[in-house]
Amino acid sequence: MTESFKLTAVGVGPGDPELITLKGMRAIQAADLIFVPRSLDGEQSLALRIARAWIDAQRQQIIELSLPMTRNANRLLTAWQAAAGQIAHSFAGMPAEQPGQGVYLLLGDPLLYGTFTYIWAELRQQHPHIEIEIVPGVTSFAAGAARAQFVLSTTSDRVAILPATYETDSGQLRQLLSDFETIILMKVGRILPQILAALAEMDLLDSTLYAERVGMPEERLLRGPELNELGKQPRPYLSLLIVSKGNQR
Amino acid sequence: MTESFKLTAVGVGPGDPELITLKGMRAIQAADLIFVPRSLDGEQSLALRIARAWIDAQRQQIIELSLPMTRNANRLLTAWQAAAGQIAHSFAGMPAEQPGQGVYLLLGDPLLYGTFTYIWAELRQQHPHIEIEIVPGVTSFAAGAARAQFVLSTTSDRVAILPATYETDSGQLRQLLSDFETIILMKVGRILPQILAALAEMDLLDSTLYAERVGMPEERLLRGPELNELGKQPRPYLSLLIVSKGNQR
Repeated sequence: MTESFKLTAVGVGPGDPELITLKGMRAIQAADLIFVPRSLDGEQSLALRIARAWIDAQRQQIIELSLPMTRNANRLLTAWQAAAGQIAHSFAGMPAEQPGQGVYLLLGDPLLYGTFTYIWAELRQQHPHIEIEIVPGVTSFAAGAARAQFVLSTTSDRVAILPATYETDSGQLRQLLSDFETIILMKVGRILPQILAALAEMDLLDSTLYAERVGMPEERLLRGPELNELGKQPRPYLSLLIVSKGNQR
Repeated sequence: MTESFKLTAVGVGPGDPELITLKGMRAIQAADLIFVPRSLDGEQSLALRIARAWIDAQRQQIIELSLPMTRNANRLLTAWQAAAGQIAHSFAGMPAEQPGQGVYLLLGDPLLYGTFTYIWAELRQQHPHIEIEIVPGVTSFAAGAARAQFVLSTTSDRVAILPATYETDSGQLRQLLSDFETIILMKVGRILPQILAALAEMDLLDSTLYAERVGMPEERLLRGPELNELGKQPRPYLSLLIVSKGNQR
């Protein structure tokens, strides 16, 4: 029976439960096992919260996978291996007469800055009998731009997407802004004060959108002079900044 | 009654009708007027084809807006103004007792390389009484990557998205590939032979995915040695190339 195990990674979108795709919703409804990453920093199981409406807790089993918030490569690798093992173990525990269908839920799109990539690499190596499918999702930056009515790119624009944590240097930012019309800084929370100071210096705050927890009840969207409200404190993990030179106002 | 006119730009996703969001589907079902761009190059009304299942032709009115495939700025501006005028005229023609709800359908995401941006600018200027909402969508590159199981970015990767038509120089490509782990070339069809030659020269074909009409019956996905099947001919407009250095195989 092992050939019939299938795991579908579903991007549930950025936060608004209505921004899941039909395909994602149906994969969740068809699953026996629901895997959700659970991190230890308070941002736990957001993907589960988004998908709740499509889950039947009586019929479906929810399995939380612990993923530490760390940059320690060994601890990460151990966690990914454990998660892959837990997935394989859960499939193996399914009754023999029931085909094993699982979903792995994650925010945004699975292949763009997603945690699934790492667990998938372990699954491929250790448990290659589990078939994988990927259902794409709406990204946080597309949703933030839509909520704020902020154009990401016209037909001739170049767009750079950066994991902001690695991009603190204002010289680099300046270079990128000369090569690209639009820059999207993902998960900008920790280094937000430095980035905003650099943008203010370049007189680009009027072309900047800050979006936090898009589509969730705690959503925050700020532009131009409103950006001063952010002060000098770091912001949460689920935050992003979009600078688009066409959006001067 | 003019205050109650509302136009929702809905990104219907890249091609697979199941990749529309619930929010997009509901906006379409709630609309009285369905606006769809219709271009003159044979790629007409793809967005309409994707959304068909949610449209009731008895109850809802479909209005095709002609958008020429040209780079002539004057012709484009004239077409956008005409489209904005047609939208406003259609709303004005609604019976007074019916609140006017319209949707504008487009492929992918509305604010990333979408046609709506231009028509919206005209609407804002000429017909500011029409309220606008944007519903984000799944992009063609996220869907192509998902179909081909091709990782777009790990957590520390930088991603550059380029409108490929403007990026033919292999020196520029080389520079971008040294600054970014992943490069996405949108609408690559016309210049595909040059780009593939440059990538072959850089020994990067094994890290390259070509995706054409993702999620449609005519979908084509090619990687590595399969890319040679493309030959030296240009390919259709709805095609993209993703080069991601982490995807060597």
